[in-house]
Amino acid sequence: MPTEIPDYRLPPENRQVLLARRPSGVPQGADFSIVSAPLVKPGPGKALVRNIYLSVDPAQRGWVAAEANYSTPVAVGTPMRALAVGVVVESATASLHPGDFLYGWFGWQDYAVIELSQVILRATQELPLTAFASLLGINGVTAYLALTELGKPQHGETLLVSTAAGSVGSFVGQIGRQFGCRTIGLTGQDTKAALCKERYGYDVAINYKSAGLSEALATAAPDGINVYFDNTGGAILDTALRHMAVQGRIVQCGTAATDSWSPPPTGLRNEREILTRRLTWRGFVIFDHMAAYEAAADELARLYRSGSLVYDVDIDVGIEHAPGGIAALYAGENRGKKLIYIG
Amino acid sequence: MPTEIPDYRLPPENRQVLLARRPSGVPQGADFSIVSAPLVKPGPGKALVRNIYLSVDPAQRGWVAAEANYSTPVAVGTPMRALAVGVVVESATASLHPGDFLYGWFGWQDYAVIELSQVILRATQELPLTAFASLLGINGVTAYLALTELGKPQHGETLLVSTAAGSVGSFVGQIGRQFGCRTIGLTGQDTKAALCKERYGYDVAINYKSAGLSEALATAAPDGINVYFDNTGGAILDTALRHMAVQGRIVQCGTAATDSWSPPPTGLRNEREILTRRLTWRGFVIFDHMAAYEAAADELARLYRSGSLVYDVDIDVGIEHAPGGIAALYAGENRGKKLIYIG
Repeated sequence: MPTEIPDYRLPPENRQVLLARRPSGVPQGADFSIVSAPLVKPGPGKALVRNIYLSVDPAQRGWVAAEANYSTPVAVGTPMRALAVGVVVESATASLHPGDFLYGWFGWQDYAVIELSQVILRATQELPLTAFASLLGINGVTAYLALTELGKPQHGETLLVSTAAGSVGSFVGQIGRQFGCRTIGLTGQDTKAALCKERYGYDVAINYKSAGLSEALATAAPDGINVYFDNTGGAILDTALRHMAVQGRIVQCGTAATDSWSPPPTGLRNEREILTRRLTWRGFVIFDHMAAYEAAADELARLYRSGSLVYDVDIDVGIEHAPGGIAALYAGENRGKKLIYIG
Repeated sequence: MPTEIPDYRLPPENRQVLLARRPSGVPQGADFSIVSAPLVKPGPGKALVRNIYLSVDPAQRGWVAAEANYSTPVAVGTPMRALAVGVVVESATASLHPGDFLYGWFGWQDYAVIELSQVILRATQELPLTAFASLLGINGVTAYLALTELGKPQHGETLLVSTAAGSVGSFVGQIGRQFGCRTIGLTGQDTKAALCKERYGYDVAINYKSAGLSEALATAAPDGINVYFDNTGGAILDTALRHMAVQGRIVQCGTAATDSWSPPPTGLRNEREILTRRLTWRGFVIFDHMAAYEAAADELARLYRSGSLVYDVDIDVGIEHAPGGIAALYAGENRGKKLIYIG
């Protein structure tokens, strides 16, 4: 029988952030609208989740793009696809109980009627709730799995990371250190470069906007880059490729540097670098690796509890911050994983 | 004690094809000069090889280029680096005997004083001598190892090959069929397209010059390309990438489509394709894989003897054909692996 948790703060209706129109390039606040919908009871096999933290992710840009992507585009007029941390407040399934804290596909809204398949991870009491939407969320787990499974970092190798202070990059640098790599972080702001060195332990941090990147990489990686974990693409990627060591690996995890793919942008031809340096360049999307998710999250939790990893969150309060959140991310305004607290 | 084979046709001096100047782009005949040098006796640990077939390879372009490559550039004024099949005519090492037929790094010249380390393969009586400079040479073995180790073809997958009738591509298509792949060959001439289908067993052959390549690939590979074995790069590569299946593999084995890398050419940005299709793009250079060479050559010889593979050679007679040979290759004039007979 469905039960309820009456002591949790429960809005009487469901505010939803809908995709109002198909964005061109980076989604802006005006591409969304906030509406109020009536609360719906969970049908058999389902549960009602009250969201607490909404996640704002660079990947959301791809999820609303008209161009072919790895996922079906979010339909205009429907709630924005998003990850969130929430709590079950009513359940009609034995798999989910009121009071269960969950991380999963709950959308940008106050409430979600969900099935078990939408849950990625169950939150425990051992870690702060924000950890489940950052360190143990797709950001941290992407960093861990993409680096270890595709990047294959070896002790003593040089690891380069773009958006090095970002919600994925900040973990990549820290995890790379755990594998004994020398780490070089790229970022576009001096304050973030300082953060890379002081908080995320990068051996070198480079503001690619203020220096000749090629010269800076030549100095920082005189023997070449063994692993390049790329979240940006664009001219930074072209430059980094030309500093790769023979047999180097490039992990393509994002393309933040390119605002629009229509018309198709151009850049340096890179196949000769791939060939003569015998590089391996691979694309990573977390959804291919969900079978390995929980083990990776366990390892990240272990590293966090042992003091080997830190995570940072940048929290806005109120669902009205969601619509403009993606554009703010791409503008580099956040310090740590961007979350919206609506609890 | 050194012995001699008096019954082999032995020129009295050593004609050598020297690199006369550093070429820009594809080396032309005028970049080389032919000189006569006195015959040199092999010193201790060495042997004198009389070359019979000189190999002409696309990779020779890279070996003379000024730009950084996977090998030290051939010095101006020295014999052109080349593979060849030859016979030992005099030996001062117990490892090599007069009458031994060998495939190895003997250069574009009548005679080479060699060490054992320059030998890639010993020729046996079971196969024609030309097979050692083509099917069992770096062409065939590159096709085999790059396809199997990097391309990882699976039964029922679709394999696309550029320069499909070429000295590597013609083997790639045939080996792909052995692995149960559906094979699509790209070539720039109708006569070669016909050869692809009729002789190398490609399921589909496309002349990329006469048709809209993107439309032709969409028709030929409606479910996408699982493995793209690329010998060309350039616009063909950019188009092929946009028809890759999710989790597809690209093997970068050559860059024949680009005449010059200085100034750096541009093309479509490809990182978004790598990411959203989760591709794996790797460069292959045979010299990284020499430990697997002999086993691959054995397998290719087995396939040839069983009638599962054919090979073609395009033989010019006389060392005077060597200087213009690389340019002729890039002009697509050859039919099969290009060799120069000087025996």
